[in-house]
Amino acid sequence: MRSDLEAVRARGLRIKQPSGEFVLQDVQAEDAPERIGPCDLVIVALKTTANGRLKELIEPLLHERTAILTLQNGLGSDEELARLFGAERVMGGLCFICVNRTAPGEILCIEPGSVSLGEFGRPVSARLKEVAGMFVRAGVQCHTGDNLAALRWRKLVWNVPFNGLSIAAGGVTTDQILAEPALEGEVRALMREVIEAARLFGHEFPLSLIDQQIEHTRPMGPYKPSSLIDFLAGRAVEVESIWGEPLRRALAAGAAVPKLALLYALLVRLTQH
Amino acid sequence: MRSDLEAVRARGLRIKQPSGEFVLQDVQAEDAPERIGPCDLVIVALKTTANGRLKELIEPLLHERTAILTLQNGLGSDEELARLFGAERVMGGLCFICVNRTAPGEILCIEPGSVSLGEFGRPVSARLKEVAGMFVRAGVQCHTGDNLAALRWRKLVWNVPFNGLSIAAGGVTTDQILAEPALEGEVRALMREVIEAARLFGHEFPLSLIDQQIEHTRPMGPYKPSSLIDFLAGRAVEVESIWGEPLRRALAAGAAVPKLALLYALLVRLTQH
Repeated sequence: MRSDLEAVRARGLRIKQPSGEFVLQDVQAEDAPERIGPCDLVIVALKTTANGRLKELIEPLLHERTAILTLQNGLGSDEELARLFGAERVMGGLCFICVNRTAPGEILCIEPGSVSLGEFGRPVSARLKEVAGMFVRAGVQCHTGDNLAALRWRKLVWNVPFNGLSIAAGGVTTDQILAEPALEGEVRALMREVIEAARLFGHEFPLSLIDQQIEHTRPMGPYKPSSLIDFLAGRAVEVESIWGEPLRRALAAGAAVPKLALLYALLVRLTQH
Repeated sequence: MRSDLEAVRARGLRIKQPSGEFVLQDVQAEDAPERIGPCDLVIVALKTTANGRLKELIEPLLHERTAILTLQNGLGSDEELARLFGAERVMGGLCFICVNRTAPGEILCIEPGSVSLGEFGRPVSARLKEVAGMFVRAGVQCHTGDNLAALRWRKLVWNVPFNGLSIAAGGVTTDQILAEPALEGEVRALMREVIEAARLFGHEFPLSLIDQQIEHTRPMGPYKPSSLIDFLAGRAVEVESIWGEPLRRALAAGAAVPKLALLYALLVRLTQH
């Protein structure tokens, strides 16, 4: 923990939920991995914009069989961890949740949602099932899948257009995007680009996923995608993992992603602080 | 004249130039076309966002052979005037100038540049040459061309990317656009889309025009495209004539303009005040 450490040591971790709140009094929080030492499982929840620090932060936590689970957004972190620490250690996960840190040591959980886990480049393992079981026992819905990369591309089908356009269209919520027909058309077209790029990597999503995602988003009302929240708060936006890395892989595979390329270029500039 | 009328009646029209300034004391300015009545030539310098008023503003100025010259930006005004008043009246022109209104009755002319004129759908006529001669005698460089539509598309090759990205990338000048490699790439790709759309209408521009326009723009330094100036001042931006109408025509002709479509959708939303 960084800026939250003192608050959490003094008052624990406060979790606010629509159903009420509770406090975890005795949190094992540290400000340096050296103070923790080797453990069996490392869960990586860093912003991908801090991935340059993965090596120094994780190395002190490893013993020979330590597993590493990255819950980070977008593409690139699985491969980066595999390169640094060995592919066999790496598992990845996607969080379909709505959670914000509202103050030091204070977390607002609007929608607990679910977490999907996969091994990096391998089918579901006994180890992965064990980790999923820990999430479930802690009250978190958790699924496992044989194809982590496909899960990641599928999440991009939503994140690329909505997170991106919410910033590029001037700081707008998902309902404002869908209220403008030209922008809804661009959401759909960007989703199609991502789906067709994913297909070149062997991940087949039906085009009906587009309607499905749009109709799932409408009832969310004035929802601020996580990248917009970061942007409006002046925090780093995960431009490379959500748009840059998918764009580079899509282009390398020969996909036609002209809209993704334009959106990425705008976001690179818009998020320069 | 609208908001400038009183100032101009009281103090004339002040023209500031790098070489000095001068004042036109006796300006024939009116606030309603009815007070002017029929004349031989009407020059239309309205923002295209006010084109809904063309009929009421121009009708009182017409006699049987009145010619109408529109110096407005983008696409659509020639056709709109032709539809309202007859194609035979219409001439069009493009202003390659750098002029701002800095205060009521006060005009800053940074770069007098030049004006290019053409007949609507016809080659250069005696009438057009006569009008061009009037510009030249007034000290304005003036060219005439046989293909007004081609001139308009050619100007869009610059205006679509630079005016558009200067707004969509967060209010940036042309040098800031060219300083970001991803954005320069998008400038080039948008230029290519416009050039290839124009080709479907019979207007052939070499792709070398792209390099040429970029190299022409670099020495302009921190230049604010006119649409950005409007945007930053909270004035209406000519979204439909510069992006919307070219997009609709390109799509109708079967052109692939995915980046133009995204840029247009963003601008529609960004310029809603």
